[in-house]
Amino acid sequence: MRTGIKKRKFTTTGTARENEAIKTGSKYVKCGNPVEYLCLEAGGLLTIRVVAKNHVKPEKVQKFMGLCRNLVEATLKEEGCIDYGLHQELENSGILTFLEEWEDESSLGKHLNSNHFREIFPLLSECLEKETEVNIYRRSL
Amino acid sequence: MRTGIKKRKFTTTGTARENEAIKTGSKYVKCGNPVEYLCLEAGGLLTIRVVAKNHVKPEKVQKFMGLCRNLVEATLKEEGCIDYGLHQELENSGILTFLEEWEDESSLGKHLNSNHFREIFPLLSECLEKETEVNIYRRSL
Repeated sequence: MRTGIKKRKFTTTGTARENEAIKTGSKYVKCGNPVEYLCLEAGGLLTIRVVAKNHVKPEKVQKFMGLCRNLVEATLKEEGCIDYGLHQELENSGILTFLEEWEDESSLGKHLNSNHFREIFPLLSECLEKETEVNIYRRSL
Repeated sequence: MRTGIKKRKFTTTGTARENEAIKTGSKYVKCGNPVEYLCLEAGGLLTIRVVAKNHVKPEKVQKFMGLCRNLVEATLKEEGCIDYGLHQELENSGILTFLEEWEDESSLGKHLNSNHFREIFPLLSECLEKETEVNIYRRSL
């Protein structure tokens, strides 16, 4: 359940919405009849973005991806999870990176303490050439 | 203009939509009367995600962010740009990272050849402690 996606209705014109969406970095969609503008706060200024970059041993790439399947599915259902996915580098298939978006730091903290994360973490670590590089960000622009 | 956000209408139930959204990694919203389900392909399996991580000299952080303001605004208007923003690391304010999402590699290529990118790139480079680390990804899970 993507509970992290907040919806906000607008009453002004499409152009004004586009300008606001560009300014705040949020996404919006136009739908319904009469027209409603819904602003999705995902990608907004207040969310937390995580980049967790893994250098996976060449012979362990398939195992690593298999282990991640249940983790991704369970995490996407978490309260406060806006987006969470495993991404493969185009030029180096051994670089597998989680790109994550959370409503706030508290949601991220709960994820790191969840059973599905804590159980799989040591198994994932066994597949790595070196420790995962983790950076946690907030949007500036 | 967020032209990269594709909308797709659904006719099945909310639960089925949630399951599909989780499976494909795409976002969806429910709106209108009668209810319509709109799937946003942003965050989907086929987009290109870029992580461009900059280590900025401490005394140049404000200058770097100022230079990036016009770049972010111009890039968000580009055809094929789904999301583009500058993010600051919570524990190290000198790490400033572009997190980007593009419809395809061709859109990214056009961005890298755009005047607003080519003109600002050398100015940004002068603010850095070392070369920008760039990784280009496609979603696996």
